[in-house]
Amino acid sequence: MTVLILTSEEDVTADMVVVHLNASGVPVIRLDPADLTGGVSLSGEYVHGAFRGHLQAADRLVSISGLRSIWVRRPGTAATRAAQPSSWLTEESAQALYGMLRGSDARWMNHPDAARRARHKPWQLRLAQRCGLPVPATLITTFPQAAREFADRYPDLVVKPVSGAHPQDPPRAVPTSRVAPDTDFTAVAYGPTLLQRRVPKRADIRLTAVDDRLLAARKATLADADPDEVDVRFASSDLPWQPADVPPRIAEAVLSYLREAGLSYGAFDFAEDADGTWWFLECNQSGQFGFVEVETGQPIARTIAEWLSRPGPEPHSRVNGSTTRVC
Amino acid sequence: MTVLILTSEEDVTADMVVVHLNASGVPVIRLDPADLTGGVSLSGEYVHGAFRGHLQAADRLVSISGLRSIWVRRPGTAATRAAQPSSWLTEESAQALYGMLRGSDARWMNHPDAARRARHKPWQLRLAQRCGLPVPATLITTFPQAAREFADRYPDLVVKPVSGAHPQDPPRAVPTSRVAPDTDFTAVAYGPTLLQRRVPKRADIRLTAVDDRLLAARKATLADADPDEVDVRFASSDLPWQPADVPPRIAEAVLSYLREAGLSYGAFDFAEDADGTWWFLECNQSGQFGFVEVETGQPIARTIAEWLSRPGPEPHSRVNGSTTRVC
Repeated sequence: MTVLILTSEEDVTADMVVVHLNASGVPVIRLDPADLTGGVSLSGEYVHGAFRGHLQAADRLVSISGLRSIWVRRPGTAATRAAQPSSWLTEESAQALYGMLRGSDARWMNHPDAARRARHKPWQLRLAQRCGLPVPATLITTFPQAAREFADRYPDLVVKPVSGAHPQDPPRAVPTSRVAPDTDFTAVAYGPTLLQRRVPKRADIRLTAVDDRLLAARKATLADADPDEVDVRFASSDLPWQPADVPPRIAEAVLSYLREAGLSYGAFDFAEDADGTWWFLECNQSGQFGFVEVETGQPIARTIAEWLSRPGPEPHSRVNGSTTRVC
Repeated sequence: MTVLILTSEEDVTADMVVVHLNASGVPVIRLDPADLTGGVSLSGEYVHGAFRGHLQAADRLVSISGLRSIWVRRPGTAATRAAQPSSWLTEESAQALYGMLRGSDARWMNHPDAARRARHKPWQLRLAQRCGLPVPATLITTFPQAAREFADRYPDLVVKPVSGAHPQDPPRAVPTSRVAPDTDFTAVAYGPTLLQRRVPKRADIRLTAVDDRLLAARKATLADADPDEVDVRFASSDLPWQPADVPPRIAEAVLSYLREAGLSYGAFDFAEDADGTWWFLECNQSGQFGFVEVETGQPIARTIAEWLSRPGPEPHSRVNGSTTRVC
C-alpha cells in the first residue's frame, strides 16, 4: 500500500516526512496536480459495478485502490503547468483527479471537505466554544454601531482578517494589529471586520495535532515586549520555541475539535495569559511545523509519517470528511 | 423560526417555493450574498462561550439561531455588487457569512460541503455503483491507449465533460455527444476525457429527490429519434414529461445515495433502456425542477417548501454536511 503526497516540487516540509517514510520502507508517490496532462497522468474505469483507477507520475504507476493514505500538503492548481493551460482544463483535471481520489478508501490528511470547512474562522470560533476552549470575546460585523458598542465593552482590541492571507501574488499574511482607542468604526460598513479582545500574553503556544498525538511548543513573551506586537509571526522576539505540556482539559477539547472538524492534522495557536490560561486564536489545518520541529526537536515529521504509514485504508470510508458507512 | 433563502433576485424557481412558504405563514428571509456590505449586513458576537449572530436584508433583521433551514438556491458571489468590489472583499464577506451560517444548527438544502463534493462526477459514479445503481461502463483517462482499448470493448460510446458546464461567461452546458467509430484518441493525453457506453434509450428519466420524497418523471424517446441525439437537454423531441413510478430497488439505492452524499435535494438523470433498466447518468445537487413541475404537475416546489418549513433545527447539527454530534 502506497502513500500519496500531493504537493509542489519544492517543499522542504514534505521532504522531512518523506525521509521517514523512506527509512521505514513505505512506498511513496509524490506528485503535483499542476503537472497533470504533463508529467502526471490518470485513468479510471467504472465497469460491472467496480472501479479500477491508476495514477502515473515520474514513470511510477500506482493503483488508486492501493493507496493507504493521501497527504494534501501544498498541491498546485491542477494542470497549470500543462502545455496549454486554461481554466477549463484546470476544472476538468481537478474534477477528474480529486473525484477519483474522493471515491477511494484511503485515509486523508486532510480530507478536502474538512480542509475547506476548517478555513472558516467564524466556524472555528464557534466550534472552539462548543468544545470548551477559552475563546477571547470576538465580534465580526458590518454594523459600525455594533463595533462601537463592542469597543466600549472591550477597550483593548485587536483587528484581524476574517479570511487569512490577502490574495496578492504571492498571497501575503495580513498581520493582526492593535486597535487604537480613538478608532472611528464607520468603515466597518464597507467590509466585515473581525475585532477581538487582546489577550495580554506571557507566551505564544503552538499545538500541533497529528490525529491523537498532541505536540505543544511555547515561546515566552519578553517582559519588556511592545504590547503592539500582537502577532507572533511578525514579532521581533528571539526567545526560542520550547516543548510544553498540554493541560488535560485543553487536550480533551482539542481532540474533540479535531474529531468534529474531521481533521487528522491541525496547528492550533493559543495565547497564554498571566494566569496560565490558553486562549484559542485559531486552528490552521495546513499550518507549517518545520520551524517548531527545528527549534524544539519534537518529532512532528516522524509522527506524520507514522500516521500516513498505518496499514490499509479506513474500515469505514471517509466520503464526507467524517467517518460514515458507505451504502 | 425563519427560512433563509440564498439566491439572486431574479429566480422564478425560488419564487415558486416562496409562494408555498408564504401560504403556510412560515417567515422567510431571502438575500443574495452578492449584496453584502450593500443591501445585506451581518454581525456575530462570540462572548462567554456563546454565539449571537444576525443577518439584515431589506430592513428585516433575523437572528442566526432563529433559522430553521437554509436553502442554497443560486446565490451570487459574495460582495460582487458592493460599492467597491474586490477579490479580497469577496473572500472576507464569503468567509464571514458562510462561516457564521456553518456554525448554526439550521438544516441545509444543500450543505455547502455536500454540494461541492456532489459535483465530482467520478465520485458520483463510484457512489452510484456502491449504492447498487446500474452505471454504464465509463472511462475517465489521459492515456490514449486506455481510450483505444475501451473503444474496442465498447464500440458505441458517448463523450461528455468531466466537470459539467464550460466556464464561459455566461457558463454554457457542454452537450454529451456520440463518438465516431474511427475516432483518433491521441488528444486524450492533453485533457482528461470521459467516455461512456451509450445506452440505447427508450426514455429519459428525471428523478427529483427531496429528502425521502422521490418524484420521477419520464420523457419517452421518439421511435424514429436520431441516435446521435443523446443529450435530452439539446434534443428536438416534443414528447412531454410525464409522472412515473420509481422501481423499489432504484428508490432504495437513491435514498442510500442521498444519505451517503449528505444531500437533502438531488436531481437524478437516468436513461431507460429497452428492458426498462434505469441507467444512472448523474445526480445534480442543484438541478432545475421548474420544467418538470410545469409539465407533470408534480408538487416539487411544495415538497421543498414543506421540507424547509419543518420546525426547529436538527437535533444533531450538520457541521460536516452529514449528521454528527457536536462536542
